[in-house]
Amino acid sequence: MPSLAFFRLKTRDEVLALYPRFSAVGVEDLDLGEAVGRVVAGDLAAGEDLPSFLRASMDGYAVRAADTFGATPGLPQYLEIRGAVPMGKKPEGVVAPGEAWRIATGGMIPDGADAVVMVEYTNETPEGTLEVRHPVAPGDNVLHPGEDVRGQEPLFPAGRRLRSQDIGLLAALGVTRLRVFLTPRVAVLSSGDEIVPVTKQPGPGQVRDANAFLAAAQVREGRGIPILKGIVPDNREALHAVLAEALTEADLVLISGGSSVGARDLTLKAVEDLPGAEILVHGVAIRPGKPTILADIGGKPLLGLPGHPASAAVVMHVLGQPLLQRLAGRAGKESSWGGTVQARLSRNLAGASGREDFVRVRLRSDNDTLWADPVLGPSGLLSPMVKSDGLVIIPLGVEGLFREDEVTVHLFSE
Amino acid sequence: MPSLAFFRLKTRDEVLALYPRFSAVGVEDLDLGEAVGRVVAGDLAAGEDLPSFLRASMDGYAVRAADTFGATPGLPQYLEIRGAVPMGKKPEGVVAPGEAWRIATGGMIPDGADAVVMVEYTNETPEGTLEVRHPVAPGDNVLHPGEDVRGQEPLFPAGRRLRSQDIGLLAALGVTRLRVFLTPRVAVLSSGDEIVPVTKQPGPGQVRDANAFLAAAQVREGRGIPILKGIVPDNREALHAVLAEALTEADLVLISGGSSVGARDLTLKAVEDLPGAEILVHGVAIRPGKPTILADIGGKPLLGLPGHPASAAVVMHVLGQPLLQRLAGRAGKESSWGGTVQARLSRNLAGASGREDFVRVRLRSDNDTLWADPVLGPSGLLSPMVKSDGLVIIPLGVEGLFREDEVTVHLFSE
Repeated sequence: MPSLAFFRLKTRDEVLALYPRFSAVGVEDLDLGEAVGRVVAGDLAAGEDLPSFLRASMDGYAVRAADTFGATPGLPQYLEIRGAVPMGKKPEGVVAPGEAWRIATGGMIPDGADAVVMVEYTNETPEGTLEVRHPVAPGDNVLHPGEDVRGQEPLFPAGRRLRSQDIGLLAALGVTRLRVFLTPRVAVLSSGDEIVPVTKQPGPGQVRDANAFLAAAQVREGRGIPILKGIVPDNREALHAVLAEALTEADLVLISGGSSVGARDLTLKAVEDLPGAEILVHGVAIRPGKPTILADIGGKPLLGLPGHPASAAVVMHVLGQPLLQRLAGRAGKESSWGGTVQARLSRNLAGASGREDFVRVRLRSDNDTLWADPVLGPSGLLSPMVKSDGLVIIPLGVEGLFREDEVTVHLFSE
Repeated sequence: MPSLAFFRLKTRDEVLALYPRFSAVGVEDLDLGEAVGRVVAGDLAAGEDLPSFLRASMDGYAVRAADTFGATPGLPQYLEIRGAVPMGKKPEGVVAPGEAWRIATGGMIPDGADAVVMVEYTNETPEGTLEVRHPVAPGDNVLHPGEDVRGQEPLFPAGRRLRSQDIGLLAALGVTRLRVFLTPRVAVLSSGDEIVPVTKQPGPGQVRDANAFLAAAQVREGRGIPILKGIVPDNREALHAVLAEALTEADLVLISGGSSVGARDLTLKAVEDLPGAEILVHGVAIRPGKPTILADIGGKPLLGLPGHPASAAVVMHVLGQPLLQRLAGRAGKESSWGGTVQARLSRNLAGASGREDFVRVRLRSDNDTLWADPVLGPSGLLSPMVKSDGLVIIPLGVEGLFREDEVTVHLFSE
């Protein structure tokens, strides 16, 4: 392994610290109805007050609060019902002292009134008189202009991923189009003479191209757009040509590598040949996932994944997803790659000396305790990943974890 | 509120217990590359062994393990290098006693050999002799046929949502097309005379149709397909006509309701008029979210959401998402609606007597403690939802929670 000799293994943090050299891939303008899950590309401000007018927040009667002071169930106040507020219109007239106007939730408070008496605390007499059994203070059961959002208020900073409630707020403010970061396009290349397309029946010694499908599915989980470039033969010229093409089409190139040392060296040489190429990482101090390559090709990142499927999957979770977030405009989100849950480890675990260890675990609930059961097995197998719910990290320099230790499980997305 | 009088408030569990009457909306066949995140519609079995042949799981030399017994760094065993295994082909010939064949990870173990010596534990002499410094046992550093998956093994039961690693395993097995449940289509109707389209500047007393956008975005978050049906006037005939149309187009109808009692009663009457309509729920013992309607219209569910935006959003999280899961083929997933995290409450909270209380909280990390800060505010406002990360439940019958209590935060999806 001559090339490896020039590189010290980098820690995960050292790799993540390289990401700020890569930029978000661009912006586009989008209709609001398409924007949930997308990342805001410029700071957004409200532009107008919300609500824009004094509104009832309960069904009842618009009144002058002072007219209700002292009302009790035993000694109610009596008001004259003199109007009804139409929904969606400015009420005409003024609520005079001693008057009550019917109003529904969302109705505009008429001039003169400063509170709403809830319908539950009233009775209407047949003569059109309102009996009020509880007093209200000025401002009770109304929403004031700007109480939800003030016009000059900053709403969302660039880099925010829009959730459904954010979409609701933007709709309320009349923001029907907005600028978001483009969704990164990710080319996935497969290399290795033993690899055949998934549509083909493998001959003796051959395997189907599962890793590319796995990586492409992880790209989708990370909200990127995968572009499957197929299998390139294990020779430098062919690999170089496909790499060059992929770099024109995509914002990130993943090489789902041949698993042998020879295939890895070949990949490295083909990458080094690309114009503007700089190999940033060749080997990461994680297990599984050591034989990982990161390169900067004239500003575009290239990630060479290990050949073992479980190793490739872990590298995508731990290093690929944060890179994808970065390209999607989510700067500063490099250190998290999904939800977590606390659990208790169900057996002792030895760490990997000198490497950060990512242990696959399955969650199991038993007597109100959430257990993390390690799912062991060589990283050449897929089924342990399939049986697992997430990863437990044994940090660098820690010899191991003990049975019943509380651990953080980094969940696979579902 | 005459109609309400006929209905007792139902608890959340009582509402969820009604969902099994609704079925998954149908199935389709899909290419594997499109299937991540989709739900398997029939039990899947492997069909063939994985790996399909005896493979090397390390770079090194294929040997007869017995030939290495007793090897130590001080007293190595010596083997003759007599061949090299080509990647992706069946090696020709047999590894005879005393022989070693070069092999890369993923190579097919030649006949005669039963183990791989890792390259790190060997030296090649210039004369083509291999020095082996550590013994291997039969089966060391090889993967056996069927070790990952056996041909008759059940893989995924119907109802499983496919994750990236599942896609990888299916690719490895040559499953290029599979049957999944259809993605539910969800019609979103808005009612209320005060509501104007988001593209319109609201006049006095009018508000934009934010709730429909919020609900549609929540449908997308729940992996459904929203169909925005626009605003229907507050009259029974118009509402009835649009409802009937929506039921032909969609698998679930959401009515983002007018917020007043009158609008709710009108909605209820229009729903009751539909052929085959049965009102299952009118009022749920949750806060916010009490004025919620669930109906069965000839087998299709209809959910009437409260008018206050925060109430509607909570109802969608708590009752809408589980219903969507059910229609998507995820039977048995009715009681969970997202990820959770444990945190400490930063202040005392009073519960809602007689209702399950859903309190919006923002998460804050401080000195290794994750705090849940309640975000208070009337449910007529959107911004408290926007500022929150999730919900804390104060169960029915619990008077409140105390500062520093450990609570489960049900996270909003991001």
